[in-house]
Amino acid sequence: MATTAEPIVRLTEALGKLPGIGPKSAMRLAYHVLQSSDAEVEELAESLLSLKNSLILCSRCFNVADKDPCSICADQQRDRTVICVIEKPSDIPPLERTSQFKGLYHVLHGVVSPNKGIGPDNLKIRELLPRLRDGEVREVILATNPTVEGEATAMYIRQLVTPMGVKVTKLARGLPYGSDLEYADDITLGQAINSRQGF
Amino acid sequence: MATTAEPIVRLTEALGKLPGIGPKSAMRLAYHVLQSSDAEVEELAESLLSLKNSLILCSRCFNVADKDPCSICADQQRDRTVICVIEKPSDIPPLERTSQFKGLYHVLHGVVSPNKGIGPDNLKIRELLPRLRDGEVREVILATNPTVEGEATAMYIRQLVTPMGVKVTKLARGLPYGSDLEYADDITLGQAINSRQGF
Repeated sequence: MATTAEPIVRLTEALGKLPGIGPKSAMRLAYHVLQSSDAEVEELAESLLSLKNSLILCSRCFNVADKDPCSICADQQRDRTVICVIEKPSDIPPLERTSQFKGLYHVLHGVVSPNKGIGPDNLKIRELLPRLRDGEVREVILATNPTVEGEATAMYIRQLVTPMGVKVTKLARGLPYGSDLEYADDITLGQAINSRQGF
Repeated sequence: MATTAEPIVRLTEALGKLPGIGPKSAMRLAYHVLQSSDAEVEELAESLLSLKNSLILCSRCFNVADKDPCSICADQQRDRTVICVIEKPSDIPPLERTSQFKGLYHVLHGVVSPNKGIGPDNLKIRELLPRLRDGEVREVILATNPTVEGEATAMYIRQLVTPMGVKVTKLARGLPYGSDLEYADDITLGQAINSRQGF
């Protein structure tokens, strides 16, 4: 016989589907919600429901946005000579937090993955090319993830972009800040040696 | 200028108010929601909204419940001779997971805390006494938290219950499973020595 009231179990199960939230955390969160004010619970529920309805894709960079063009593409302060190509919209906040990049973005919405039947035409790769034709863009930074599929996608795009006379770069590979050589994996350490930098 | 669309920021802020979810996790969760199916998002929002509306307090044990009496109080398989007194409804699932307790509960909804102006009359302490008068209950386990306020609340209840001829116990204090003496705090280790058990 269940000892927990059904509405608590229901919320626990719904919260437990979110990434990084296990069954125990989900139950603790459900009990926390029970003690929260009605206004807080309603705000959370409404922001969940309104999320998708109020978002579109920017017609230039394909970032999720509440207006078209998105606030980054519309911002005249951004450097329009550099485009950073990323896999997904959620890659933008961490890059913005670094304050090291002031250019524009281009969101691919995935990576080439023959196993999953995802080819270049299923991504926003073709849509990148017109953005490079007016001569304003001088550099494309390929910031796909350092995985087999991410690297393969980057190589595919490099083949398309290089003939257009645009410089192509990728994010540096090497040891993460605060790491320890003793615990670094072989591939990372190998790349850190091969890509060693002047000091 | 904000670089993240407002609906994403709104959901991130609402999720960030939940305990244990920092700003970065909240943003990752918001982007995850963006990729979830409409049905999943609606289920989460609706289970949030329906939680409080569909819950009441059990009139016997004061646990949150979807019916009165709650499923534990109504379960004739439970041992009606023992009542475990706890601070809050969310203390029940971890106790149930142990499978070691088959009795009934009594939820205080807080602890005595003079600093916060919470006295015994603000808690469900008085409501415990009628449950002990019919002679069926033989033991009350005081399972308030091992904190200053939890202990003080337990001592207060002990003074009320002992004259009624009911046995009063508390949860064992000692070293947690899997811990290491070298890292145990002084109070825990002291209690483990003083409450040493036959072996």
